[in-house]
Parts: sequence; C-alpha cells; structure tokens
Amino acid sequence: MNKKATLIVHSGDLDKVYSAFIIGLGALSMGMEVSMFFTFWGLMRLRKGQLNRAPLSRMNMFGLGRWMIRRKMKRAGVASLDKMLSDFVELGGKILACDMTMDIMGVKKESLRTDVISNYCGVGTYIKEAMESDVTLFI
Amino acid sequence: MNKKATLIVHSGDLDKVYSAFIIGLGALSMGMEVSMFFTFWGLMRLRKGQLNRAPLSRMNMFGLGRWMIRRKMKRAGVASLDKMLSDFVELGGKILACDMTMDIMGVKKESLRTDVISNYCGVGTYIKEAMESDVTLFI
Amino acid sequence: MNKKATLIVHSGDLDKVYSAFIIGLGALSMGMEVSMFFTFWGLMRLRKGQLNRAPLSRMNMFGLGRWMIRRKMKRAGVASLDKMLSDFVELGGKILACDMTMDIMGVKKESLRTDVISNYCGVGTYIKEAMESDVTLFI
Repeated sequence: MNKKATLIVHSGDLDKVYSAFIIGLGALSMGMEVSMFFTFWGLMRLRKGQLNRAPLSRMNMFGLGRWMIRRKMKRAGVASLDKMLSDFVELGGKILACDMTMDIMGVKKESLRTDVISNYCGVGTYIKEAMESDVTLFI
Repeated sequence: MNKKATLIVHSGDLDKVYSAFIIGLGALSMGMEVSMFFTFWGLMRLRKGQLNRAPLSRMNMFGLGRWMIRRKMKRAGVASLDKMLSDFVELGGKILACDMTMDIMGVKKESLRTDVISNYCGVGTYIKEAMESDVTLFI
Repeated sequence: MNKKATLIVHSGDLDKVYSAFIIGLGALSMGMEVSMFFTFWGLMRLRKGQLNRAPLSRMNMFGLGRWMIRRKMKRAGVASLDKMLSDFVELGGKILACDMTMDIMGVKKESLRTDVISNYCGVGTYIKEAMESDVTLFI
C-alpha cells in the first residue's frame, strides 16, 4: 500500500497555501497518496477566482507585497497557485471541502471550484483519512 | 490497541481553538484516543472564563466580528467552545497543560480550568504521547 | 530503529520558533531522531544574527514585548534560541534549509548559519524524511 499524507489547510494566507501545495505536490511526486482538506480561511481560497488573492501572513516583513512575492516566485520558477492546484488534481491528489465551514460562512457549492473538489464533507471524513496517513499536517 | 491523536494547541485564536476541538471531538467519536496539549497562547484559553474570549486570527477579513462568528456557528448547529471542551473530557479526551508556559507567564494552577485538566506537564510528556500517535498536529 | 520526528518551521514568529526548538530538543532527549526543515519566514531566522530578532505573533496580547518575554523565559530557566539551536545540533538533530526559499528571497548561503545547517534542499528531501517519521508537524 502507498504511503499517505493528509493536510488540513486552515489558513488562507498566501504563503501558507503555497507551502501546502508545494508539500502536496512533492508528496504526490514521491508516490504518496495525498488528500488536502480545506477548512475555515483555507476553504475561502477555493472560491472561484480567489486562489491568488490570498493575503500574505507577514506581507510587510521584508517590504514585499503580494505582487513582488509573485514576481520573485515566477523568477525562481515556482508555478502559480492555480497551476499547482490543477497539477495536484491531475496527479491524483484529492481536494476535500469542509461542509461545516460552508454552512457557517454561507458559502454555496456553486461559488466554489467544483471542477477540482472531489468531496464535500466533514471532520469524520478527515479523521478516516488521517488515521491511515503517515504524514499529517495542520497548515 | 486504539489509534491515537495528539494535538498541540499553541494558538489562542478563536478559529484555531475551534478547529482543534472539532478535530479532537471528531477523533474521539471515531474511536481514537485523543490528547490535547495546551501551550503558549493556547494555554491562556484554559484560564477560567477565557475560552470564548479568544480573538479571531483574521477577524476583519470578511467584516465578521467575534459575535457574528458565534451567531453564525450557533445557526449552523456548532456548539460553543465551553460545550465542546466539556464534551471532549466526558468522552474520555485528555487535556494537558504546559507547565513551562505556566512558569513563564506566571499562570497559577488555581486560575486554570482545573476541572478539565488531567495533567500539568512538560514537553517530555507530550513527546511520549506523540511517539505512539497516528495523527500529530501543531495548531 | 529509532522513532523519528520531522518538523517544518514555516513561521518566523519568536513564540513558534521557541515551540519548535523545545519540541525538537524534547524529542532528541527522548531518543528520537529529529530533522527540522526551515522554510519561508522560518528560514529567515537562520540568517546570521537573526534568531533572537524574531517578532512575537501576539506581541501585545498581554502587553508583553520581546524583551519582557525573554526576561520571563530566562527567569523560568528557558535557554535562548541561540543556545537551543547549538544544543540541538550537538545532540545530533539535523537542520535543513529550504533552497527554494533561498531562491525566492534571494538569500545567499553565506548569509545563513552555515555552521549548523546540514543540508540545503527542497521538498523532496523533506518528504523522504517525513514518510519515515512517527511525528510530523507544520509550525
């Protein structure tokens, strides 16, 4: 059986969502199964057109804005979040959307990236996946 | 032997403490053993009367204040943090309080929720629990 | 074979970097193998002279500044971050530096603590270590 990684994406901060996808893609490319469970502010990033609008958690720390970070990432050959998300799904990664967050925040299914989400579910589904995982992270 | 989850609650942010308890309760209800180790700002939430006073990490992101989040959670059928904490303990979950944080911050035992805390301990106890766990998260 | 812990240090916040080293040292002292992978803002703390300059994530929450936190930690017998880092390496812990962050942020090797870093590497190396770990955390 393949090794498995299950990531909770709770944060909506640009840098943390980047980290999540870099880890998720890295794990897939090493032959692992990977599920990413998007909840709270993380789920908000799965709304249509919102993936690259995430705020940086320390935007002003180095005087770098969102635009600058993206330019630097591009120069360093790092793909955009949209590209990483579609690569992730193409390589067999699973995107899970937290239905409780949808209820609380009043987020309708049709406002989400339904083209990449494989399941709308709750903590029970997350726990089942996490129990059988070798790597579990809360991001 | 049961599967086991060990969560570090380092953050005191309302949304992260919610996530921690939702995961903890979910894991218990799936038959796992669960320990939650409260440290730094997380431990501050275990002071009497402080659990529901936690600040939101992105309070203004959607223009939602603490009061609004709670109303939305109530409408979506999500229990209060106080209720989740007592359910967690009743279902057999263990609450561990970081004694180093108590030292640093000058927090006395009597100012904490001694009714729910099962152990006042340090990183050694956490590591022992984490080593045998199937799910480990830092929240 | 020894039990193993692999920590991602993504945050550069003083309190989180403390937590990371306390956990890392605790795990080493319980006989575990430990790798800490420094990325994004975490990597910035590995620049020469920057370890103790990390901002607190909730600096004003209790009206405690960085200086006050350090004084309280000293009184409680908690070592400085510099001391913890050198103890960690002496006890056999591995410090990994994220080369992608170096590229993005334009961080040169010579500006980093090369005396403690055992490897400059990417997500693939992290995943290899995490796959065989018993404890995985994202800090």
